[in-house]
Amino acid sequence: MTGKIEESPLYSIANPESIAIFGASNKYTSMGTSILSSILHIGYRGKIYPVHPSEKTVLEYKAYQSVADLPEVPDLAIMVLPTGVVPEVMEACGQKGIKHAIVVSGGFKEVGKDGAGLEAKLKRTAAQYGIRFLGPNCIGAVNTHFRFNATFLPCEHPPGFIGMASQSGSFITQMFAYLGRYGLGFSTGFSVGNEADIDIVDCMEYLAACPDTKVISLYIESIRRGSEFVEAARRIVPQKPIVAYYAGGTEAGRKAGLSHTGALAGEDPVYNGIFRQSGVIRAWSIEELFDICWCLGTCPLPKGNRVIVQTHSGGPGTVAADACERFGMKLPGLSEETKQRLAEYVPHTGSMSNPVDLTFSRRNLDYFVNIPEILKQDENADMLLLYLMMPLRTVRMILETMGVSGDELEAETEKFVNEQSRYLSDMMLGSEKPVIGFSYYSGENPFIKSLYDLGAPVLPGPNRAARAMGAMLEYLEFREKLSPASG
Amino acid sequence: MTGKIEESPLYSIANPESIAIFGASNKYTSMGTSILSSILHIGYRGKIYPVHPSEKTVLEYKAYQSVADLPEVPDLAIMVLPTGVVPEVMEACGQKGIKHAIVVSGGFKEVGKDGAGLEAKLKRTAAQYGIRFLGPNCIGAVNTHFRFNATFLPCEHPPGFIGMASQSGSFITQMFAYLGRYGLGFSTGFSVGNEADIDIVDCMEYLAACPDTKVISLYIESIRRGSEFVEAARRIVPQKPIVAYYAGGTEAGRKAGLSHTGALAGEDPVYNGIFRQSGVIRAWSIEELFDICWCLGTCPLPKGNRVIVQTHSGGPGTVAADACERFGMKLPGLSEETKQRLAEYVPHTGSMSNPVDLTFSRRNLDYFVNIPEILKQDENADMLLLYLMMPLRTVRMILETMGVSGDELEAETEKFVNEQSRYLSDMMLGSEKPVIGFSYYSGENPFIKSLYDLGAPVLPGPNRAARAMGAMLEYLEFREKLSPASG
Repeated sequence: MTGKIEESPLYSIANPESIAIFGASNKYTSMGTSILSSILHIGYRGKIYPVHPSEKTVLEYKAYQSVADLPEVPDLAIMVLPTGVVPEVMEACGQKGIKHAIVVSGGFKEVGKDGAGLEAKLKRTAAQYGIRFLGPNCIGAVNTHFRFNATFLPCEHPPGFIGMASQSGSFITQMFAYLGRYGLGFSTGFSVGNEADIDIVDCMEYLAACPDTKVISLYIESIRRGSEFVEAARRIVPQKPIVAYYAGGTEAGRKAGLSHTGALAGEDPVYNGIFRQSGVIRAWSIEELFDICWCLGTCPLPKGNRVIVQTHSGGPGTVAADACERFGMKLPGLSEETKQRLAEYVPHTGSMSNPVDLTFSRRNLDYFVNIPEILKQDENADMLLLYLMMPLRTVRMILETMGVSGDELEAETEKFVNEQSRYLSDMMLGSEKPVIGFSYYSGENPFIKSLYDLGAPVLPGPNRAARAMGAMLEYLEFREKLSPASG
Repeated sequence: MTGKIEESPLYSIANPESIAIFGASNKYTSMGTSILSSILHIGYRGKIYPVHPSEKTVLEYKAYQSVADLPEVPDLAIMVLPTGVVPEVMEACGQKGIKHAIVVSGGFKEVGKDGAGLEAKLKRTAAQYGIRFLGPNCIGAVNTHFRFNATFLPCEHPPGFIGMASQSGSFITQMFAYLGRYGLGFSTGFSVGNEADIDIVDCMEYLAACPDTKVISLYIESIRRGSEFVEAARRIVPQKPIVAYYAGGTEAGRKAGLSHTGALAGEDPVYNGIFRQSGVIRAWSIEELFDICWCLGTCPLPKGNRVIVQTHSGGPGTVAADACERFGMKLPGLSEETKQRLAEYVPHTGSMSNPVDLTFSRRNLDYFVNIPEILKQDENADMLLLYLMMPLRTVRMILETMGVSGDELEAETEKFVNEQSRYLSDMMLGSEKPVIGFSYYSGENPFIKSLYDLGAPVLPGPNRAARAMGAMLEYLEFREKLSPASG
């Protein structure tokens, strides 16, 4: 691929102006209907042509008895049909002139010999008509920025910057809520299924060219085109980071993958080698995969591995220090200049070593803006890691001592939380060095929720933050190694 | 200690019938006032005597100018005072006949030589009067079952079964919300601070004898009485599991701990040795510490390491299989009998290997009750791991096809979710083999929230579940090794 997104076989799959959908009906529990519901739910603006043998309308859209009857050639066909009829529908789509398809239906190679035969037939038919397709045995694609969600779960969160190609559809759909919880989301996600035609390498190429995608994430049970994978990744990584979770490295994972998508997986060391050679960061859990994407997509790259940890609680500071070192970072001492500048902010109970333990700060903006500003400017710091918490009772107490009470208290508490989170997120997101937060609080806490919504990276716990920061350093190294200038 | 809880120096600290509190006032932002607020908030039923030099009442309680004026000898004194006056207040308490204290005030050994001198003086005074005390430089103690919360954050969640002794107060107070999110909570928690008198070993002894505590958790920056620690743990572990997070294993963690509590930490391998010898499970993050407690406190012990994974999504099943193997478990094939019994439940798209991938199930109770019941009875299974998700839209769609609509839909959806979670949690909590759930959904999802509230262990993600299951196996081994019968 040359790098122009319109030339990708996935362009019309992720950005169709018109779609034909096979298998949607007025029966709510059918998979096809669910997919059409998701397409409507996200506010798709293109034309929708349900094809149904008997229904006159499907979810209030005029239905067509066959694809031949459609008033135009749609950009994309989506098939959610019994396995046996898929090849003939593919043929009919070819005759109509359709060039792109998503085959959701399962029952192909993943179920054994008979299915493999049917899959071969499907490929031949598609090839004959020049049709490029995703699947079979996939759950579709989502392009949140284009308001297109052809998967069976609704995407109820705002568009994001994480591109994903996944050999499990669950890690697209079932992550909508997971990512949304942290204010994250997919830019575009592809469930590649059995990869009979389009595969994960094609998806990487598309996502590399996609302007809405800042980081590429992969869920891999097996890489089918090894050398193409390596070659594509090495081209992409200097421009955009790639992070992969690989599930087939254990015997149990390998067997599970085999029965899931018919993938033949390899040993851990083999895949470690492939990833290292490709410049792909390996994540060891799905959560870690997205943690790394979160930091890479919201922070500038660090220049080195020296971290200053800021805390107002000793324990979380100590745990963060321990975690940083375990994930490859160093905690330098503060420069003399920084110590002098900090003096007015740090109470006598606090500590000016690293972690900087403030124990408490006189004004909230000290903790969230002024002190981190000073620490960021320390010549010994490549990154900052901030411990964040703001229990609502504490906020209410602060306001009460300022004379706020009664009906005003709730409104003022909300206003206070929103202002503080705005200042903090502006500082974090505008920084020329990575500033990452961590908290044991989550979206139930309004301060943390507000930071998520504003796009600030506030990771759940210091270990997850430290691992993601370590991965940023891995990317730094890969990018340097693979950039043409360094060759 | 003989094992009778009333004989522990911590008994009156965790179960005081009456308290004197020094440092509480009517100023909301003071630490002392916060602690008194927390005591009131949780519904403490004992007598409260604020001691204050000038106020007539403190938070509506009659205040006393000095401890000598109190109408009785309280069980416990809580001191949140400027460092310098603590020894003389301890002296006054001794003269009054008080035998137990919590010293919250900091500024002692952790700040250097002068502080260390003051701490020595404090110890001498306490010893002179036979006073046992927690701290200094701690944030108190909480006994949720006794409705006593002498820490500066309110505990807004129900009592739980996790006992904790922590060298960081944050890992008591700042965990109230974290644990509450998962339906968990502390039974009793002690912040030990500088351990000038009572230390973490005393806390372990108390928690071992505490009937509300099912699992003992420790946050450790340094163990001061090494041989007593080992000896106590070896006695406790056959009856009750102990899980510890140790933060001082890296250079950065060691330094941070030193400035936090003046602890002198040792290398990782030294602590690994201590923990192994003691039968204490080592956790590698605070989240992992509590994950392990969650499973140990809600599940029977497994008899071996063979896990059957049940899923309806291939990807999460594969990831769970991979994670289980990485954490020391095996995934056996299903027995022939199980396969026969499952046949009526598993659709043709599904898989009867392990993970058992149902792809979908005809009835919800199949997935949540009937199928796990069959799997549990498999002679090859020591544990079950279930993938759990129930998006609300799916529930609504199921109900709509059953003819429910309009105003009824919300109420019926809630009822359906609650019924399903009740069946599932009954099955999980009543099982003679461990049944553990995992989900990428969290408390925002009503099904998962309901399971948390019912006390079922549903861990956030397969890796965390697998690690906690692996830790149950570690405990099994430690318990066997340390039980007198096996000696």
